[in-house]
Amino acid sequence: MTPMTPHHLRVFSAPTFSRRTAPVASIAADRWALGRIQHAVASARVRLVLWDGFDLPPAGGAPVATIVFKNRRALLASIWDPDLNLGEAYMFGAVEIYGDLVAALNEIYRALDRRTPRPWWLGQRSNDPRAARENVHRHYDLGNDFYRLWLDREMVYTCAYFPTPDDTLEAAQVAKMDLVCRKLALKPGDRVVEAGCGWGSLALFMARHYGVAVRAFNVSPEQIAFARNRAREESLSDRVEFVEDDYRNMRGEYDAFVSVGMLEHVGPADYGALGGLIARSLTAHGRGLLHFIGRSQPGALNPWIRKRIFPGAHIPTLPEVVEGVLEPGDFSALDVENLRLHYAATLDHWRRRFEGAAGEVAEMFDETFVRAWRLYLAGSQAAFTTGSMQLFQIVFARGSSNAIPWTRGT
Amino acid sequence: MTPMTPHHLRVFSAPTFSRRTAPVASIAADRWALGRIQHAVASARVRLVLWDGFDLPPAGGAPVATIVFKNRRALLASIWDPDLNLGEAYMFGAVEIYGDLVAALNEIYRALDRRTPRPWWLGQRSNDPRAARENVHRHYDLGNDFYRLWLDREMVYTCAYFPTPDDTLEAAQVAKMDLVCRKLALKPGDRVVEAGCGWGSLALFMARHYGVAVRAFNVSPEQIAFARNRAREESLSDRVEFVEDDYRNMRGEYDAFVSVGMLEHVGPADYGALGGLIARSLTAHGRGLLHFIGRSQPGALNPWIRKRIFPGAHIPTLPEVVEGVLEPGDFSALDVENLRLHYAATLDHWRRRFEGAAGEVAEMFDETFVRAWRLYLAGSQAAFTTGSMQLFQIVFARGSSNAIPWTRGT
Repeated sequence: MTPMTPHHLRVFSAPTFSRRTAPVASIAADRWALGRIQHAVASARVRLVLWDGFDLPPAGGAPVATIVFKNRRALLASIWDPDLNLGEAYMFGAVEIYGDLVAALNEIYRALDRRTPRPWWLGQRSNDPRAARENVHRHYDLGNDFYRLWLDREMVYTCAYFPTPDDTLEAAQVAKMDLVCRKLALKPGDRVVEAGCGWGSLALFMARHYGVAVRAFNVSPEQIAFARNRAREESLSDRVEFVEDDYRNMRGEYDAFVSVGMLEHVGPADYGALGGLIARSLTAHGRGLLHFIGRSQPGALNPWIRKRIFPGAHIPTLPEVVEGVLEPGDFSALDVENLRLHYAATLDHWRRRFEGAAGEVAEMFDETFVRAWRLYLAGSQAAFTTGSMQLFQIVFARGSSNAIPWTRGT
Repeated sequence: MTPMTPHHLRVFSAPTFSRRTAPVASIAADRWALGRIQHAVASARVRLVLWDGFDLPPAGGAPVATIVFKNRRALLASIWDPDLNLGEAYMFGAVEIYGDLVAALNEIYRALDRRTPRPWWLGQRSNDPRAARENVHRHYDLGNDFYRLWLDREMVYTCAYFPTPDDTLEAAQVAKMDLVCRKLALKPGDRVVEAGCGWGSLALFMARHYGVAVRAFNVSPEQIAFARNRAREESLSDRVEFVEDDYRNMRGEYDAFVSVGMLEHVGPADYGALGGLIARSLTAHGRGLLHFIGRSQPGALNPWIRKRIFPGAHIPTLPEVVEGVLEPGDFSALDVENLRLHYAATLDHWRRRFEGAAGEVAEMFDETFVRAWRLYLAGSQAAFTTGSMQLFQIVFARGSSNAIPWTRGT
């Protein structure tokens, strides 16, 4: 692989915090500030410590982790804008978390009031095709060899489906792809269009196991190159076409539309256009499936995640998607499933594999990158575990179509 | 039984249309008006006829039915406000529909543009407890003997669930109750509260087959009396308490909340209060299920249905319910199923039984009542068949609860 140094430099090169432990004693104002943080997460069983050893134990119970602020700037910035700066300070080593990182984040998520709505996205700019391409590039083009270190064999970078909690990640990703195909009621000869196909695993799976013809869109050159290569290796190139283009340039008529893990990258300003596009693309009795990370209360994506991990992302509620995408397309929701705990399990697998390969990742990139991704993976696991984030699969069809499954078993 | 003559008189006694066939020839203006109606449902294969025999065949295809306007008032009123007045004119015999009524209504529903949003309910008044009681009284207290003529043995007046399309209505209503219990993951000893319990069939089923204790609310005295009697007969009075009261007076803590076919009678102005009430009523790991008639595009309930059949009713979209009820209660949607075609099948059974008992119904009430209910049942069947209406079951739990089913099979 070619390590994506240019990106990596641009995304992560300028540290916003120093990792240096302050050589001075904390003063009353520092301790007051630490107290404000403890107050904000009062019920979280975490121990808060300043650079000189001053500490506040949790109000109740033994601590699951210890959070150390190594200098005054990290402390004050964390008070000023905790959503952004705790992530920033952690990634550059100005905050250390000792103990179980996921457990610590679970405690903090549960302690925070999730009900405060911050509809910052009202008036959010549209992710035009160029911005969309750039956003995707910054995340998905970090190098296939990087993702290969910790994804499953099929390179599926979306929530898996574990028939039982003990299934392997490999089995669960295959089970997820099969679940999607069954929900779409695919049959041999169907024409399927996929918006945002990652490394092509689902497109290839559908062609291989359900005998359909697939046209799959993705703006990531690294992913498309990888997917095309797989199609050739598996002699599926005649049935799976990987198109390196924005999904908005989709043309033609299809029996099924599927999108797994792409809606998060579509701004709400573009939902109506997406609904219209699907409506133009599907036959009268076509079926659609949207698989996406959602939330139960409207709100902003964590700003640190948005800055460092997923630029341009938006995590919608179910109503935002039904009103924004389905209603303008004149579709009816047929079936919705929330797989949040499956995403927590998926992330647990990814995070353990990532930690096992942390040395290699640090060599590919650097320690700051490892810390940022460690926090992203652990934080996401905590968000799905505590219900701060959801994973929805919506199946839909035109309101006028009666060619819909009679029951879930059929 | 005591025929509910006072109601019946108040609801239906004053004819708004004469059934008399006009003795005059139609003039150019009448024919122009008929043309406007044909234009509005251009693709519907129905033949339109005036009182003197002037007719407009459908633009394409053989007609499935013939609609006769028997006088000028019926014709002009149908142009002025078709949603209300076609129903009025039909019920009082000023409009006749020959041929297959359901097929005719299917054609008309499909021909109309369902996408015109009419958010008339913005600012709709709250259905205060007195209004709610009155609205319920006008529909559900028409007499148990009336409903017994055409409902199933268990007296379930909500959408059934047909494991296969050929199941009997009796089997399908039992299957629906079992589906609800499985979705709620009921276990022996659970405390269940039911908002709007009809004749008590689900409450009794849950206690009998799942070993739970149920408190069930309903403001219909006739239904509550019937339900209490059944509980005594089945020796379930110690485990099922039927409360003749508004659901808003619900108190106590429960492991499960269920409401089947009541949300339609809750105005959107009261959704937030309902969500808060459920939130106060459920334990930390309680589950909830809402089963309700919905729509895929926001809009008004047909005004004739609202005037003659379901006063105070509102048919919400899925987003209206998730935003209106679940978000204020801090709940997460876990599972949504659309059973629209099952309601079309249920209504087909009801309508056929109703027609078989039409003579008895006419004796209990009168011919106008029979015509009104014939139109209501056939129109509802057409609405579910053509996708103008949906039937949603939403399962939900607190956003913070992980005591949720791992998969649908568990």
